[in-house]
Amino acid sequence: MKTFDIDCKLVYEVGGLAEFFFQIEAARIPEHTILSESFEVTPSIAVPREYLPPNSHNRSLRVHAEAGTTSIVYRARVVRRFEAPDVDAPELAIAELPDEVMQYLLPTRYCESDALFGMAQRTFGHLPRGYGRVQAIVEWIREHIFYQVGQSDVTTTARDVLANRVGVCRDFAHVGITMCRALNIPARFVVGYVEFEEPPPDFHAIFEAYLGGKWILFDPTGLAPVENVVRIASGPDAMDVAFATIYGPARMTDIQPNIGEVVTEAARPLASEPTQVPLAA
Amino acid sequence: MKTFDIDCKLVYEVGGLAEFFFQIEAARIPEHTILSESFEVTPSIAVPREYLPPNSHNRSLRVHAEAGTTSIVYRARVVRRFEAPDVDAPELAIAELPDEVMQYLLPTRYCESDALFGMAQRTFGHLPRGYGRVQAIVEWIREHIFYQVGQSDVTTTARDVLANRVGVCRDFAHVGITMCRALNIPARFVVGYVEFEEPPPDFHAIFEAYLGGKWILFDPTGLAPVENVVRIASGPDAMDVAFATIYGPARMTDIQPNIGEVVTEAARPLASEPTQVPLAA
Amino acid sequence: MKTFDIDCKLVYEVGGLAEFFFQIEAARIPEHTILSESFEVTPSIAVPREYLPPNSHNRSLRVHAEAGTTSIVYRARVVRRFEAPDVDAPELAIAELPDEVMQYLLPTRYCESDALFGMAQRTFGHLPRGYGRVQAIVEWIREHIFYQVGQSDVTTTARDVLANRVGVCRDFAHVGITMCRALNIPARFVVGYVEFEEPPPDFHAIFEAYLGGKWILFDPTGLAPVENVVRIASGPDAMDVAFATIYGPARMTDIQPNIGEVVTEAARPLASEPTQVPLAA
Amino acid sequence: MKTFDIDCKLVYEVGGLAEFFFQIEAARIPEHTILSESFEVTPSIAVPREYLPPNSHNRSLRVHAEAGTTSIVYRARVVRRFEAPDVDAPELAIAELPDEVMQYLLPTRYCESDALFGMAQRTFGHLPRGYGRVQAIVEWIREHIFYQVGQSDVTTTARDVLANRVGVCRDFAHVGITMCRALNIPARFVVGYVEFEEPPPDFHAIFEAYLGGKWILFDPTGLAPVENVVRIASGPDAMDVAFATIYGPARMTDIQPNIGEVVTEAARPLASEPTQVPLAA
Repeated sequence: MKTFDIDCKLVYEVGGLAEFFFQIEAARIPEHTILSESFEVTPSIAVPREYLPPNSHNRSLRVHAEAGTTSIVYRARVVRRFEAPDVDAPELAIAELPDEVMQYLLPTRYCESDALFGMAQRTFGHLPRGYGRVQAIVEWIREHIFYQVGQSDVTTTARDVLANRVGVCRDFAHVGITMCRALNIPARFVVGYVEFEEPPPDFHAIFEAYLGGKWILFDPTGLAPVENVVRIASGPDAMDVAFATIYGPARMTDIQPNIGEVVTEAARPLASEPTQVPLAA
Repeated sequence: MKTFDIDCKLVYEVGGLAEFFFQIEAARIPEHTILSESFEVTPSIAVPREYLPPNSHNRSLRVHAEAGTTSIVYRARVVRRFEAPDVDAPELAIAELPDEVMQYLLPTRYCESDALFGMAQRTFGHLPRGYGRVQAIVEWIREHIFYQVGQSDVTTTARDVLANRVGVCRDFAHVGITMCRALNIPARFVVGYVEFEEPPPDFHAIFEAYLGGKWILFDPTGLAPVENVVRIASGPDAMDVAFATIYGPARMTDIQPNIGEVVTEAARPLASEPTQVPLAA
Repeated sequence: MKTFDIDCKLVYEVGGLAEFFFQIEAARIPEHTILSESFEVTPSIAVPREYLPPNSHNRSLRVHAEAGTTSIVYRARVVRRFEAPDVDAPELAIAELPDEVMQYLLPTRYCESDALFGMAQRTFGHLPRGYGRVQAIVEWIREHIFYQVGQSDVTTTARDVLANRVGVCRDFAHVGITMCRALNIPARFVVGYVEFEEPPPDFHAIFEAYLGGKWILFDPTGLAPVENVVRIASGPDAMDVAFATIYGPARMTDIQPNIGEVVTEAARPLASEPTQVPLAA
Repeated sequence: MKTFDIDCKLVYEVGGLAEFFFQIEAARIPEHTILSESFEVTPSIAVPREYLPPNSHNRSLRVHAEAGTTSIVYRARVVRRFEAPDVDAPELAIAELPDEVMQYLLPTRYCESDALFGMAQRTFGHLPRGYGRVQAIVEWIREHIFYQVGQSDVTTTARDVLANRVGVCRDFAHVGITMCRALNIPARFVVGYVEFEEPPPDFHAIFEAYLGGKWILFDPTGLAPVENVVRIASGPDAMDVAFATIYGPARMTDIQPNIGEVVTEAARPLASEPTQVPLAA
């Protein structure tokens, strides 16, 4: 159990009427307790509205903007619980998979698991089934794909990444997801905040695979331990969980998605004497 | 559009292992924007967890406590939008009511609309149907039921209130709901924060009736304008929306559910120059 | 795994415009496969509509009727899977109960578990916790409450039944639920079809308790094995799952909720040669 | 209001253990009343299970099969209500769109509305906004894309169809959806049963656009009136609503998705004398 402070700032130059949908809030999931959170929008021409789709933990913040500079600051203190994964977790047979995870076996826009079926089978089909096979996919990606910013963009799919052998965290995650699905392992995309040494602070993308009846996190970039990721959202691929979706003329001029671990009494479980959880402010 | 600051403190003496379920957080509904919120639990032996039932806006905070003093402080800044009710809103025929409101016509533990069918018909059956009839119910309650603290408790039902002609806001709301349901008008219980002159700050209970295809708020106590109520939760009756449900040995020693309106630039709609929304802290 | 044919007919004399809500269809739950179903409404002045509340398996059929005789016939063939209960299932501590079952600990209109807390503690509080304690409640009800038709009605609550010591299946279930809740065991009401020897065919009410992380069925009447009940709906108590809720002038003139087990090849699991599942008609 | 009989048969040669997910059942939506339905699976080695995702009307039938011939027959009688579209329905501004339709503006695997943004703007950007513009898209598709079976497959996307100018109903729908999304009109894919003169009976794909606050159906193929389509499912594109998704070795050997209109008293609204709705069998 760790406690993190998030301080995320996004700034846009807006050229006219625009509608923003931000996914930057910590997810409301059992693994999180959100001790405090706040946001500021400048200018305050319209108060943001939050939208939580039914049966989802992906919170979306809708902001209506006019011409000028628009900024949003989101701050939160989040306690994050983490259970170490079972490294012996088996792959389930299709017949054992629950109905609600079946959608995570389908190809999606960025994860063409049908087109890459043969590649996945040739590369990973012979390996022993289970947690170790997904771990092998992760290591293969780390070994074969070059991590470099600026060589991929929002149109880049797993097939492109495998062809060009270069990408960033989102591309790495898409390849991992695609390989899993092609092997009949349900897999989905996860975005969140994480504290890096290098590169500078940014949103981070990892993925999770459904093994032994649970979702288990994997990070093919190896940039940070998965237990340090504070989840924002998850979905079939990056399309569903963009940190900002914008309709109208707008250009991002600043992005600072900061996060830092809090060393606090709050994280000490089962303290016998009273301890005060300080406010985030 | 108004902005409110909530500062709610509850303190309990706990005699042993206990499990608390608090409903004290501002509801996540389109009429609210929660600019900031935080909570502190003392001692922090276990971090609270929030539960949001599917297809509901009633947030529940679950806290596991041990022997000793347990307190919870919830603070929030909430922008509350309010649309003036249509005073010509009609009662809909049963055939016109949507499926999802039908449950609010059924009798419940505190609102015995079946047993009070005759009374409702005799008293309000002859009045013109529509918003005005619900308003007449509200005025009848205000005239015939004496508002007094300490004459009713958690077992008191609408039938008891009508017999004894005394109660508090929750009892007034139960009577209003019961009369509506007995006239085939869907009605439900609403709790929230409100700023009173008198009595001292407390949670407040009102009700809403389904008229002309919308839920419209009514306050039979007349203690405060309904647009000043920041909703916590709604449900069939008070049973579902208790501010605290406790399993285990615990005694409340302090309750301070404060709320105050914030006079701030944030509430100025469509300001042309940038304005800063200050943090709640 | 057993296969049942349901053939349910309800007839009403309707005096004018009326709106009916029937809960008579087999529940769409994992334990059921509905091989076929159909309904006929006479006269067909309006086609019924089905309503399935979000996150519920309680199907509701809405029928708009005019003056005259209105009848509805529902027929279905349902395969019902059944897992024998774990007779060693423990009662979970409150802290172990999942959020979504907490509502089944609250008192409801027919199950005043708060008012009957002392009675439950005195009678069952000393017994060893677990499946056996719920079984003891069931046996106590069977021994102390006289099963007799016509001595209770739709206003009868668990408290009334305990006072008068007489009732029918719905009353028996209400007492069982109330005792469980007063002992902090989540419990809910279940209605369905069942084949009786005696009395004549009718809807049947039983209850289920949450033990060891699962819902386990109990029938305090002992009239039929619970694995022979084809579930229609479940809810906090009988109020939520009435087989008919009627708004408008109507009088029931016939009720025939028939069910019979089908001895068919369809029920033979893992047959190696092709077998044909015949239609219900 | 029309009544249709569906009689759909699918046959597969299965080479070993396989898991089938069929989406062939009439959707449970307010526009449909399903008077009767049944299915038969041969051989009956395992009874199918139905899955209805939360907040969805897309029913899915899960069948576990072993080596041999596996067939499924689905029969239903469905009353289908239809409201003529408002041909003056406006396109809503982004700011006016409800949260829950925003997902239908995003590019998907088969509908690359981002990549085709320029094409859509050049071709339809100058047209008056509203129902007429979507109708213009439909007519443009009908004029520019050649309807021919066998020139496209399950990997064909809208971009491919626009390049090759050939496709079937699903391709036509994908192009229509893509153009709408590129113009900021929410659009989604709809599959169902429809009675054709030519070609032989098959599942049919059309699309719907969100105009004036409602979903309005369009059929770019012009093969049948949209009011004759009995909906099975809808989703972002064809990926989510395949009539069969199969895991394991299986080959389709027969497909007969028949539908026919029933000329019956049941379709006569508000008949004053009793009329009997005959069973489908």
